[in-house]
Amino acid sequence: MKKEPQELLPNIKFPCDLRALPVEALPQVCNELRQEIIREMACNPGHFASSLGVVELTVALHYVFNTPNDRIVWDVGHQAAGHKILTGRHEAFHTYRHFGGLRPFPSPDESEYDAFACGHASNSISAALGMAVAAQQGEVERKVVAVIGDGSMSGGLAFEGVNNASSTPNDLLIILNDNNMSIDRSVGGMKQYLHHLHTSSLYNNVRFRLSNGLVRLGVLSEKRRQKILRFNNSLKALLNNQQNIFEGFNIRYFGPIDGHDVIELVNTLRQIKDMKGPKLLHLHTIKGKGFKPAEKNPTVFHAPGKYDPETGERLKDNTEGLPPRYQDVFGETLLELAKLNEKIVGITPAMATGCSLNIMMKEMPKRTFDVGIAEGHAVTFAGGLAKEGLIPFCNIYSSFAQRAFDNIIHDVALCRLHVVFCFDRAGLVGQDGATHHGAFDLAALRPIPNLTISSPMNEHELRRLMYTAQLPDKGPFVIRYPRGRGVLTDWRCSFEEIPIGKGRKLSEGNDVAVLSLGPIGNVVAKVVDELKEAGKSVAHYDMRFLKPVDEEILQEVGTTFHRIVTVEDGVVQGGLGSAVIEYMADHDLHPHVVRLGLPDHFVEHGTPDELYHLVGLDAEAIKKAIS
Amino acid sequence: MKKEPQELLPNIKFPCDLRALPVEALPQVCNELRQEIIREMACNPGHFASSLGVVELTVALHYVFNTPNDRIVWDVGHQAAGHKILTGRHEAFHTYRHFGGLRPFPSPDESEYDAFACGHASNSISAALGMAVAAQQGEVERKVVAVIGDGSMSGGLAFEGVNNASSTPNDLLIILNDNNMSIDRSVGGMKQYLHHLHTSSLYNNVRFRLSNGLVRLGVLSEKRRQKILRFNNSLKALLNNQQNIFEGFNIRYFGPIDGHDVIELVNTLRQIKDMKGPKLLHLHTIKGKGFKPAEKNPTVFHAPGKYDPETGERLKDNTEGLPPRYQDVFGETLLELAKLNEKIVGITPAMATGCSLNIMMKEMPKRTFDVGIAEGHAVTFAGGLAKEGLIPFCNIYSSFAQRAFDNIIHDVALCRLHVVFCFDRAGLVGQDGATHHGAFDLAALRPIPNLTISSPMNEHELRRLMYTAQLPDKGPFVIRYPRGRGVLTDWRCSFEEIPIGKGRKLSEGNDVAVLSLGPIGNVVAKVVDELKEAGKSVAHYDMRFLKPVDEEILQEVGTTFHRIVTVEDGVVQGGLGSAVIEYMADHDLHPHVVRLGLPDHFVEHGTPDELYHLVGLDAEAIKKAIS
Repeated sequence: MKKEPQELLPNIKFPCDLRALPVEALPQVCNELRQEIIREMACNPGHFASSLGVVELTVALHYVFNTPNDRIVWDVGHQAAGHKILTGRHEAFHTYRHFGGLRPFPSPDESEYDAFACGHASNSISAALGMAVAAQQGEVERKVVAVIGDGSMSGGLAFEGVNNASSTPNDLLIILNDNNMSIDRSVGGMKQYLHHLHTSSLYNNVRFRLSNGLVRLGVLSEKRRQKILRFNNSLKALLNNQQNIFEGFNIRYFGPIDGHDVIELVNTLRQIKDMKGPKLLHLHTIKGKGFKPAEKNPTVFHAPGKYDPETGERLKDNTEGLPPRYQDVFGETLLELAKLNEKIVGITPAMATGCSLNIMMKEMPKRTFDVGIAEGHAVTFAGGLAKEGLIPFCNIYSSFAQRAFDNIIHDVALCRLHVVFCFDRAGLVGQDGATHHGAFDLAALRPIPNLTISSPMNEHELRRLMYTAQLPDKGPFVIRYPRGRGVLTDWRCSFEEIPIGKGRKLSEGNDVAVLSLGPIGNVVAKVVDELKEAGKSVAHYDMRFLKPVDEEILQEVGTTFHRIVTVEDGVVQGGLGSAVIEYMADHDLHPHVVRLGLPDHFVEHGTPDELYHLVGLDAEAIKKAIS
Repeated sequence: MKKEPQELLPNIKFPCDLRALPVEALPQVCNELRQEIIREMACNPGHFASSLGVVELTVALHYVFNTPNDRIVWDVGHQAAGHKILTGRHEAFHTYRHFGGLRPFPSPDESEYDAFACGHASNSISAALGMAVAAQQGEVERKVVAVIGDGSMSGGLAFEGVNNASSTPNDLLIILNDNNMSIDRSVGGMKQYLHHLHTSSLYNNVRFRLSNGLVRLGVLSEKRRQKILRFNNSLKALLNNQQNIFEGFNIRYFGPIDGHDVIELVNTLRQIKDMKGPKLLHLHTIKGKGFKPAEKNPTVFHAPGKYDPETGERLKDNTEGLPPRYQDVFGETLLELAKLNEKIVGITPAMATGCSLNIMMKEMPKRTFDVGIAEGHAVTFAGGLAKEGLIPFCNIYSSFAQRAFDNIIHDVALCRLHVVFCFDRAGLVGQDGATHHGAFDLAALRPIPNLTISSPMNEHELRRLMYTAQLPDKGPFVIRYPRGRGVLTDWRCSFEEIPIGKGRKLSEGNDVAVLSLGPIGNVVAKVVDELKEAGKSVAHYDMRFLKPVDEEILQEVGTTFHRIVTVEDGVVQGGLGSAVIEYMADHDLHPHVVRLGLPDHFVEHGTPDELYHLVGLDAEAIKKAIS
C-alpha cells in the first residue's frame, strides 16, 4: 500500500523553510500550493487564474533566490496569491482582499517580501532596474527579478524599461511570463533546442573557453574561431527565423522554457542567476494551470468570484431584478449609438470585457479597437481618428487613465478633438484597493482647457450623456461613472440631448442646498428624502457637469442659501467642491460651504460600502453634514 | 560663362508648385531652402539644426505625396522650418516663434498642412495610425506618413504605436529619421545592399512573380521556390546579423538610405508609397546638415539663438552681471549636495543640457542617468532607486512631467518613496508655446497624497529647498521652478533647512494680504513696494509650499484681512488660490479672495513678458488686483 506522503505546505511559513527542502520535493509543494489556492479562492474570490499559472515560478523563485534580501518585483500582481502564501501570510490568506485583511496586490507596506508597488501594469522592469542599479552602486549582494506578463509587455513603460536595461551596469533578471500570445511569434518548435543552446552550461560556459583553448592549442585560428562564434549566432537567427527584440537591446535572452516544470525552472534559474548584465528568461505558462475549468476559460477565471472547487461551477449571485452594471449600460448604449452614427468607433486598452466594449466588438469588429495595455496610445490614437472626423469612444478605467494624462492634454484637448472619454471604475472601486480607486480624475482633469467633464447620476443620465457627447462639434468630452450596478432596472430610455453645463434641481428646499456630482447623488437623494420627512427643507441639485459647471445653479444657491454642501466621489481638493467655492469667491458670495469627497490619503481595499463609510461619504456621514 | 540658374524657391508658394517641377530640379530647391533657413534663423532664432537635417526629406515628402490631402505627421516638430516655408508660410516666416506670428511647432490651428499637434515627443506614430485607420475605414484615398526621430523612438508611446501598427488594416508609412545613434546598431556596411534588396522594384515586385512564373514553367519546384524565398530572408538576417525589431512587429522595413540624397528619397518614396500595410523607411541624416558649424556641434545648434550666417559665430547676449539661470542653480547645487550626500543620484529624460544635470554628469557619471525620452520610466526608475535607499533627484520639464502623472502617483507617492522631483520650465516658458508651458503641475499634483509640493521664489530658496528635500525621511518632494534667469547675482548661499509647509512673511501691511507662490513673488514684491510708496499698506507672504499649505499663515490672513489676493504662475483652477479658499471655506472664514493665475485656455507663444501681460499676470495686472 502506497503511503500518503506527508504534507509539506503547512510547515512552510517563510521561503527559508522552502529552501530547506530537497529540490525533488518541489513538485509536491507546487501541487499543495495549487490545491490550497483553488480551495481558498473558491470561497474567498480574487484574481485566480493568473496565480495558478505561476505556482511553479513562485516556488522556484523563492527556492533559488534569497528573498527577501533578493527582490522579486511582480508586475500588476494578479498572480501573487502563491507568493503571499509562501511569505508568511498563509494563515492570514482567508482575509485576502477583505477590509483590513491582506491587500489585493503585493504591497511593500504589507510585507518585506513585496518589493515594490503593484497594481498598474508594466512598471516592474523600470522599478526593478532602479533596485538593481542601487544594489550595484551600493555594492550590495542582491539579485533583483522582475516578473512581467506578455500582456504587460505591450505597455510603453515596459519598453522604456527594456530600452534602459542595458544602459547602465546591472544584473537584472526579467522573467517574461508568457501565457498566451507570444511577444515574439516566431519562436516555435525549436524552443527546447534554443533553450539548451542558450542555457546549457556547455553552451554558455564552455563555448568561449573551449574555443579559446582550441586557439591556444593551435587547432583553431582566431579568425576561424570568430567565424564559428558568428556562425552560432547566425544559426540561432536562422533557426529562430526572427531575432528576438531583447537581444537587439543587449539583454541576454533565454528560453522559452516550460514554466510548469519546477525542476527545470530551478535548474535554469540557478544557471543564469549569477550571470552578469541584464538578462531575460522567457517562460511559457498556462493561465489557470491545474484547474481544468480555468484552463479552458482563463478570461472568466481571471477573477471568477466564488466557484465550486471540485467542478468549477461558478456560484453566481442571483442578479434577477437588479439594476444593470454601468459598464453594460455603456456597452449596450454604445452599440445602439454606433448603429445610428457611423462615425462612432470604440477603443479599449485591454479591457474589452471589463468595460463591456465586447458588446460592440462582437457586432462591429472593424469599428472597435483593443490596443492592448497602452493607455497613452489609446488616447493619442483616438486623437488621430478624431482628427479625421471619426468619433472615438475611448473607454479607460479611471485610475489607469492617469497613464494618459498628457495625451489627453496634448493630443486631444489642445486641438479640441472630438474624443469621448468614458472613464469606468471612477470613485472607490472596492476590493482592488488603493491602486485602483478612481480618485484623481475630476481634480486632475478640471484645469485642462476645452474639456467637458460630466458624471451621470444613473443609467438614464449615462445614456443621455453618451448620446449628447456624440452630437456634432462637442469637442473632447469626459463621462466618468463607477464600477458596479446602477439604480434603475428599467434602464433603457430614449435618447435626449442634455444641454452642456446644465445641472438639474431634484428637490426644492430652503434650509440647505446640496450639490452632488455623479451616482453618489442617489445616496444624497435618499438622505434628502429622510431629512424632509424629519421636517428639514433641503434643496438637492445634480450638477451633472464638473466643467463647465452650471453657474446658474451656483448663482442661485450662492445668493439664496446660507449653507451649501457639495458631495462627490473624487478627491476633495480641486474637484466639484473647489469649483463651487471658486465661483463663490469670484462673485463675492459668502455662503458656508461644506465639501465632502475623498480624503487626502490613499484609501485601502474593502467593499465599497465599507470604504465609503470609512472615508465619511456614506449616507450617515452625508446626513450628518447636511443636518 | 556659366549662367546663374534662376531661383526656384520664390515661386514655390505651396507644395503644388513644387510638384510642378521636374525631379532634377529638387537638389536646387533643397539648396535654396537650406540657405533660406540658415539666413532666416540667423536673426530669427529657433530650432535650427533639426530643420537643416530634414531639408531633403521635407522636399521629397511634399513632392511625392499629395499634401495636404495626404498627411505628414511630424514628431516633436523641431524640424519643421522647411515644411512651414514650403506650405504657404514663406512670407510669414520672419514671424516664426514671435508673439502673434507663426507657431514654434506644426499646429493644425495654423495650417491644413500641419496634420496633428506637435511638441511632445513620440506621439506621431499613434496619431498617424489613427489617421491612417480612419482613411481606411472611410475609404478615403489618402496616405499618412509619420516622421519620427531616433530619439523619440525611445518613448514608450512610440513603442505602443509601433506595437499597434500591424494590428488593424492601415497603410501607414513611418519614416525613422535617424540622425545620430542608430536604433538598430547592427545595421552596418551592408546598408546600400540591404536597401536595394528591399526596395528595388526587381526585389519587391518581381521576386514573387518571377518565382511563381518559374514554377509554372517547371523550371523551379514549389518546394525549391519556398526554399529560395526562405533563403533570401535568412540571407538578409545573416547579413543584417540582427533582425530589426520592426519586422518582428510585422512592419515592412526599408533602408537605411541616405536622407540627404533627394533624388533617391523621391524614388524610394515613390516605390513604397502605394504598398499595402504598415511600413517603415529608415533614413540616415546629419543634424545641422549643410551648415558646417551646426554639423560640428549639433547640440549647440539645436536652438543656437542668433548667429552669423557666414561664420556660424553665435551672437551671444552680454550676460555679465545677470543673475544665473535657475537650471544652472539646480545643476551646481545638485553637484554640491551630491558631494555631501552619497545617496543622491540624478536622473533626466534626455534633457541633460537643458536642465543642467550635465554639470553633475561630468563629475559623477556613475551617479547620473540620462534615460532618453522616457518620462514615465524616469519616475518609476527613480522609485526603484529610492526603494533601496538612494535619493534620486529626477529633473523633468513641467509640461513633459505630465507624461509621468501615474508614475508619480503609483510608483512614488503610494509608498512615500524619497524621490525629489525638480520640475524645470514651470509656468509660461515663452516662445515654445502652448505645448511647453508648465501650467498644470500645481493643480494636478496637489490632490496626490504624501507629496510635498514647493516652489522657490529665488535662487537662495531653490538651494535651500533642494537641501531640505534630501534630508532624511522627507518622502516624495516636488520643487518646481521656471525657465530662465533668477533675480540674485550673488546666488550661492549656505544650506539651511526650510521647515516643511512653512511660508514666510515678506512685508507687513493692513489693507490687503497677497499670498504668492514661486518666482512670480518677485513681481509681487516689486508691486507691493510701489503700492507702499503710494501709501497702501500691503502684507506679502511667500507661501513656498503648495502642499502642505501653511495653515498658520492662512489662519492669520483669514482672520485679519478682509481682502486677500493669491498669485501663482499655474492654472488658477485647483492651485494655490483654490487651496486658500478651501481653507477659508473649511474654517468658515469669509475674506474676499481674488485668485490670479493662468487662464482656462491654452496660452500661445511669445516672450514671457508678452504672455504674462496677455494673461493678466504681469506687474500691471497684479497691481490692479491688489489696489
